[in-house]
Amino acid sequence: MLRYLEIITQKRTHFEDITEEVQKIIDESNVKEGICYMYVPHTTAGVFINENADPDVKWDVEQTLEKLVPWENNYKHIEGNAAAHIKSILVGTNTFVPIKDGKLMLGTWQGIFFAEFDGPRDRKVIIKIIEG
Amino acid sequence: MLRYLEIITQKRTHFEDITEEVQKIIDESNVKEGICYMYVPHTTAGVFINENADPDVKWDVEQTLEKLVPWENNYKHIEGNAAAHIKSILVGTNTFVPIKDGKLMLGTWQGIFFAEFDGPRDRKVIIKIIEG
Amino acid sequence: MLRYLEIITQKRTHFEDITEEVQKIIDESNVKEGICYMYVPHTTAGVFINENADPDVKWDVEQTLEKLVPWENNYKHIEGNAAAHIKSILVGTNTFVPIKDGKLMLGTWQGIFFAEFDGPRDRKVIIKIIEG
Repeated sequence: MLRYLEIITQKRTHFEDITEEVQKIIDESNVKEGICYMYVPHTTAGVFINENADPDVKWDVEQTLEKLVPWENNYKHIEGNAAAHIKSILVGTNTFVPIKDGKLMLGTWQGIFFAEFDGPRDRKVIIKIIEG
Repeated sequence: MLRYLEIITQKRTHFEDITEEVQKIIDESNVKEGICYMYVPHTTAGVFINENADPDVKWDVEQTLEKLVPWENNYKHIEGNAAAHIKSILVGTNTFVPIKDGKLMLGTWQGIFFAEFDGPRDRKVIIKIIEG
Repeated sequence: MLRYLEIITQKRTHFEDITEEVQKIIDESNVKEGICYMYVPHTTAGVFINENADPDVKWDVEQTLEKLVPWENNYKHIEGNAAAHIKSILVGTNTFVPIKDGKLMLGTWQGIFFAEFDGPRDRKVIIKIIEG
């Protein structure tokens, strides 16, 4: 099963919790055991799994990535968004979560986040579910 | 097939070689061709694949991650372990290795490591094997 | 289906676009819907997905990784290539792309890159395709 999530981002950097929407797609698929794959078909965005309880974690992640890969840093890429490309590589553009009894096997504190690094833009996440 | 590894960590940062235990689960599964997925259901830990010959590599990885993401750095997250969340995102909470003839297709020098970034804690790694 | 790509690198750091070769393997497999997995069985190399239009992006990625993880940095690993091991962990040694209608579901600007961090060397990428 293959589905798309559409995400419209409003800021340059933004982490959007997509956990509930992904679970909804698994519910529709009726798959009880398998793997849920998430794939971001963009070069200045990513997807990661981390804490979804305290919003300060997102803030710390954003600030630390900005320190490691500053927006301005004598990059050659003429579009001016080289930092977003590099963050996309460090965070990654795909991830997966096993499915058990029809549920994402996320830990208690885990959520799935779409990561925008060069917004605002219209984005997609490909959700693919394989039974097994 | 779905199994759990239990890992009890003793230090704040620790990389535990889980290669043999993962291979043992594949042996039990009797799967000859497929994919072995590893998933860490925690937000301050991760899993990675790298050299398991010279223990100095682990030391260098640990020290470099600590320089890039210092434990103290004016984080907002009140629990005090923001650095561990960020390292978890950079290293990643899941990975996979193809299986051929019942064996993990690891390179000569590769091992699979569970990465603790906020120990000591009791941890789990979900091992999921899919044939194909 | 399982195949190998052979890559001979000429420089210490080099990012090689392998997208066309991966698509060719999918064409041969005749798989229309599924997942294409790429796995690097090396500890000083990786694989990532990012822009393949402007070569300056590769340059900026290479320079930024070098700044974050300098080649010389008082590492303990006696072989002298600790930086390459750490970059391999940050970038990752595996990735996947969903397949639809026999094609990699890459975004418009995305390509798949093999990342050499300790060349020149003879390298392999394992390509595994699972239908579903």
